[in-house]
Amino acid sequence: MSNLINRQIQLASRPTGEPTAANFRLVETPVPEISDGQVLVRQHFMSLDPYMRGRMNDGKSYALPQPLDKVMEGGSAGEVLLSRHPDFVVGDTVIGRGGWQQYAVFDANQRGALQKVDTSRIPLSAYLGAVGMPGVTAWYGLTQIIDPKADETVVVSAAAGAVGSAVGQLAKARGARAVGIAGGADKCRYVVEELGFDACVDYKVHADLKSLTQALKQACPMGIDGNFENVGGLVLDAVMANANAFSRVALCGTISGYNGAPIPMAAPSLILVNRMKVQGFIVSEHPQHWPAALKELGEGVASGKLKYRETVAQGLESAPEAFIGLLKGRNFGKQLVKLV
Amino acid sequence: MSNLINRQIQLASRPTGEPTAANFRLVETPVPEISDGQVLVRQHFMSLDPYMRGRMNDGKSYALPQPLDKVMEGGSAGEVLLSRHPDFVVGDTVIGRGGWQQYAVFDANQRGALQKVDTSRIPLSAYLGAVGMPGVTAWYGLTQIIDPKADETVVVSAAAGAVGSAVGQLAKARGARAVGIAGGADKCRYVVEELGFDACVDYKVHADLKSLTQALKQACPMGIDGNFENVGGLVLDAVMANANAFSRVALCGTISGYNGAPIPMAAPSLILVNRMKVQGFIVSEHPQHWPAALKELGEGVASGKLKYRETVAQGLESAPEAFIGLLKGRNFGKQLVKLV
Repeated sequence: MSNLINRQIQLASRPTGEPTAANFRLVETPVPEISDGQVLVRQHFMSLDPYMRGRMNDGKSYALPQPLDKVMEGGSAGEVLLSRHPDFVVGDTVIGRGGWQQYAVFDANQRGALQKVDTSRIPLSAYLGAVGMPGVTAWYGLTQIIDPKADETVVVSAAAGAVGSAVGQLAKARGARAVGIAGGADKCRYVVEELGFDACVDYKVHADLKSLTQALKQACPMGIDGNFENVGGLVLDAVMANANAFSRVALCGTISGYNGAPIPMAAPSLILVNRMKVQGFIVSEHPQHWPAALKELGEGVASGKLKYRETVAQGLESAPEAFIGLLKGRNFGKQLVKLV
Repeated sequence: MSNLINRQIQLASRPTGEPTAANFRLVETPVPEISDGQVLVRQHFMSLDPYMRGRMNDGKSYALPQPLDKVMEGGSAGEVLLSRHPDFVVGDTVIGRGGWQQYAVFDANQRGALQKVDTSRIPLSAYLGAVGMPGVTAWYGLTQIIDPKADETVVVSAAAGAVGSAVGQLAKARGARAVGIAGGADKCRYVVEELGFDACVDYKVHADLKSLTQALKQACPMGIDGNFENVGGLVLDAVMANANAFSRVALCGTISGYNGAPIPMAAPSLILVNRMKVQGFIVSEHPQHWPAALKELGEGVASGKLKYRETVAQGLESAPEAFIGLLKGRNFGKQLVKLV
């Protein structure tokens, strides 16, 4: 396939604070020949996710840092163009971690590197969102850490995002009350009117701890039993100020601190006072739960019961700006880049 | 018994910051007559515990505040002087929550209010420490939250205290490595040489986060898998900076913040980065675990395997100063007041 040119976006430098376009570099390389066991995929969608910001740093984290001068890593969905592996044929729709580029070569012998997906009832892009990693993240944190009982109140931050929107709907399906926290009236309206949450608090209107705590108190008159935390910082502090005895926090992200110094937790003694459990998790470390999660999520999307939204940027070049926007909360639902 | 005078210490005012002697008041009252179902106990030992400081505030907590102008509440051990309940006879050694006074009347029909204890192999005072609430606290947090595996490293703060000294010994008995944090060379020597911990870090020598983090790193070359946290603040921050993936924090106390404003947690994002579980607990809420805990603790003390130390203040009047000293870490092991 040496007649094909592959365009990709590499990490050119590590951001200090907020990433800028200058941290990325667009390069063109020939699409390589593939060897035995490999599959060449034309990518249709790239997934942009907040966790990528953490990997752009060089510090200690749960994953190796994104290497400099290499293609940005990330989930993707596409179509098989060439296959030298018996499990894949041309035209198969697949997902994998193809990164920020138009064409990706996968070693299909590596377990889980490339997976066929059925697009007859579920759109290809949904496998990067509601029926993919973000959906399973929501499912795991909600069912395995928060484990809500009927009539308990579950609060989720970044509620209009890919993960948050699923958390609230899955909580409602279990008979719990779902309250979102999101930035802006549009997002809050969407969370309540389209996703069916019981309430949503606009953190932009309540920008200090006292105000946000009070707004959450009104939205959660019976207190908070479960918190799916994507944001951290002030939002987590306000949740903790309303936490019930024996409440659970599934700590999934701390997006508020991704661009700078660690943000402290104001009153950790509340963990003791309220006998809380605060637990961090990374969904990729719990593969045994993925089949059950994907079954529920897939059925939800196929039947239309589980709603989701996508913000789609067009073209590879749009990825850096779309990613910067994601970190600023400009997206509604799952942030994707469409390549074809 | 109207010929007997009961002396008691009441809470006269709520402390702001560190308690002082002026917050307490010594009063004399007649020992009341007892009614059917009641038991009069001459108290031998009063238990002083850090949790009492929290109850002296009027704020929201897991227990009702200590009432003003009433006898200070707390655990105690003594001997039955008069009984109008069939389960108790004069001379029985008992424990209950008799408070800071020489004589206490118990409603023995109230389940658990008064319990007979066998002092043939275990000293009466130990039922307020290693074989009482502090011991069970250690046992619960260690076995039910930290659940250490062999060769894992468990760190406990306030390691020379009643709870901490049991935590490390119980961890060692399970094949784990036990590292203490304590204030002063004497305490650290005791923790290692007498209690058998593998190491102990003197937080007074390492008074800032960087230094304490580094000292813990040296004491825990394989990182920290479990943390039994009695102190909070800087100590917890330094533990978290050395936490391994999937480590567990049993949050039992935040004594460093008892006297003032809440102390923040510096880097809660580490809970996510290290996929930690941080869980607060109150041992009295888990009565189903007490029998197993007391069995192990009692056998340990009776056989001499489970070591403990007591700091005993003499006489009711010494209680306020002994309590103030406890909050400053002046005690070695269990802080008691001896009344006879």
